[in-house]
Amino acid sequence: MLLIGLLSTESLAQQSLFRESPIISPQINADHSVTFRLRAPLAKTVTISGTWMQSEGVNRPSKNLTPGADTVWTYTTEVLPSDMYFYSFSVDGVRTVDPSNAHVVRDVASISNTFIIDGTLGDLYKVNAVPHGTVAKRWYDSPKTGKNRRISIYTPAGYETGQTKYPVLYLMHGIGGDEDAWLTTGRAAQIMDNLIAQGKAKPMIVVITNGNVAMEAAPGEGSEGQTRPTFMLPNTMDGKFEQSFGDIMKFVEANFRTINKKDSRAIAGLSMGGYHTAYISQNYPNTFDYMGLFSPAMNNKPGQFPDSPAYKNLDAKLKAQQENGYKLYWIAVGKTDFGILLDGIKDYRKRLDAVGMKYEFKFTEGGHTWTNWREYLTEFSQRIFK
Amino acid sequence: MLLIGLLSTESLAQQSLFRESPIISPQINADHSVTFRLRAPLAKTVTISGTWMQSEGVNRPSKNLTPGADTVWTYTTEVLPSDMYFYSFSVDGVRTVDPSNAHVVRDVASISNTFIIDGTLGDLYKVNAVPHGTVAKRWYDSPKTGKNRRISIYTPAGYETGQTKYPVLYLMHGIGGDEDAWLTTGRAAQIMDNLIAQGKAKPMIVVITNGNVAMEAAPGEGSEGQTRPTFMLPNTMDGKFEQSFGDIMKFVEANFRTINKKDSRAIAGLSMGGYHTAYISQNYPNTFDYMGLFSPAMNNKPGQFPDSPAYKNLDAKLKAQQENGYKLYWIAVGKTDFGILLDGIKDYRKRLDAVGMKYEFKFTEGGHTWTNWREYLTEFSQRIFK
Repeated sequence: MLLIGLLSTESLAQQSLFRESPIISPQINADHSVTFRLRAPLAKTVTISGTWMQSEGVNRPSKNLTPGADTVWTYTTEVLPSDMYFYSFSVDGVRTVDPSNAHVVRDVASISNTFIIDGTLGDLYKVNAVPHGTVAKRWYDSPKTGKNRRISIYTPAGYETGQTKYPVLYLMHGIGGDEDAWLTTGRAAQIMDNLIAQGKAKPMIVVITNGNVAMEAAPGEGSEGQTRPTFMLPNTMDGKFEQSFGDIMKFVEANFRTINKKDSRAIAGLSMGGYHTAYISQNYPNTFDYMGLFSPAMNNKPGQFPDSPAYKNLDAKLKAQQENGYKLYWIAVGKTDFGILLDGIKDYRKRLDAVGMKYEFKFTEGGHTWTNWREYLTEFSQRIFK
Repeated sequence: MLLIGLLSTESLAQQSLFRESPIISPQINADHSVTFRLRAPLAKTVTISGTWMQSEGVNRPSKNLTPGADTVWTYTTEVLPSDMYFYSFSVDGVRTVDPSNAHVVRDVASISNTFIIDGTLGDLYKVNAVPHGTVAKRWYDSPKTGKNRRISIYTPAGYETGQTKYPVLYLMHGIGGDEDAWLTTGRAAQIMDNLIAQGKAKPMIVVITNGNVAMEAAPGEGSEGQTRPTFMLPNTMDGKFEQSFGDIMKFVEANFRTINKKDSRAIAGLSMGGYHTAYISQNYPNTFDYMGLFSPAMNNKPGQFPDSPAYKNLDAKLKAQQENGYKLYWIAVGKTDFGILLDGIKDYRKRLDAVGMKYEFKFTEGGHTWTNWREYLTEFSQRIFK
């Protein structure tokens, strides 16, 4: 009664969870299969959709939960490889999060539950007992967009108490994403903490930008209010973000202890952020020594580019980038990614080949997924600033 | 097709929302009533529970949604006063978030949707086009708990580019809460940004602590892993947090530009955090000029205190606090708060009166709610450092 007297009235609905026999979900079993449970006394069908399931075209696959005598529905997966996973339930056609699992992330407009399976990858995505960097949400002035805009900045453990200057990785999201995505779905802070603690990555500052220049910040975090997240934001792939990127670099280099040299600047992004990586690194010549294009969405064909200076004279800019030199131009994509995206990369590689640009191309398993993007960041971040 | 080609496979489930006729929920109507909608083709009963509904004992009240011909269920509230609200649906007894609303917060172990009604309070809780402070998640060494622990720190707009020193408000959560709660459910960063921009509060640093000393950080944010959030954490009200509070102050004053004087330190907290406020301010004599006890859980009666030095010699410590002097000892609680909590405050006030401690007591409408705690922070933060 003492404890119950301290709960907020808003939390009281939660208490019923403690009075009924508790539901444990997800339960990660010793063999790394996972059991999910949902109390749904009146449901006709309960299904689960999770990122460990093989995609079948545009619709996500799902599995049925089985009702038990106690009105609790259950489903147990096969043994899962080490990774971070997302999932949601559907109860008679209504998508719902697992009420027994308070760990959720937003991916664009969807809220999903998460869990981590320990092991090679999961251990990199977990918070471990290692020195932790700081994650800050900062606002910067962007004259090119006429806005005050928000970025996420990771500074490595020891940054605040030392005097060392650090190299900077600029890390960009995909369409519909924002400055939160690489931290929540992408686990960038945990990956960096763990790789730096293991001595596998150099201590670095990671600047996580928001490429939706029509917005100040992630949905609900800017003065636009609690807008509905959408894939259809204007000005994401028309050159405006690329042209305003100097505002971000200026802010970062003025406000953090950065090494302001080409060999201490890297830029990378996933999907739309891979496209941004390509064009920013062309348009700021001799600025970045490391480029990471993760499942880059190079779908715009020659002649179809928007009418922006950022996309003009592409071959000349590529040639200049090649002549100026750089240390790593790294492209990775999954074999089962979307056909249109694979075609776009094929065309872009022909173009790189035509001007003699050197790059590494990694053709991995899997598709257009955060599973791949976390792995690409893990690999790319160990290749830079060395 | 270009855009669809850029979505992650994880996001594809979301696309169906764009192919079906879109559901708008919540829809805030011109008169500030709110309409909720849920597509639930097979449901027998859909209810909504929201923080604007009057509490009736321990069980939260709920309202029925009405099915429409298009399988979309709807409910429209009465006209709502300006505030931030939380809600969730229940579909045939299964608690679920609104799949059309991507704005959610976690309150202890429950995920709820949020929305804001503009006006006197809502405008303080919104992100407005004003200068924004920085919010950082920092890790500090806590020898007294043997842990590396996480805090949230708000620094006001201009902190990073200036040389000014600032006063500090230490702000504490309730039982089951953590260093995220005042930022998510409590909107502390928005309240401070807006009050400072209006000239109503002094620019200040706000340090949001984690009072669960058995944990490093909020659930999923420490090396304990993705544990289940719970109200039943050990060591929350046994004096250990109060005795380790010096580790936090030492870190803050060593790492930020703080004014290290009594008249530039304030301490406040809600529920369990109000209890912590009382005992920390007694045990660190002559340290804080401003104390804010928001719906404080002073339920421990004399003689029932845990066997901790933090709770010993209470009357002598209160007397010393009174004699040392302070500028504001502010207690606020709602008239419909829990009886046991109101009784605890009554007993504590008798004790304060007996030693001649001066305090302000504010008996507000409402209960043990975030609606009250946001308002208490709004009022208290305008009373300090002046």
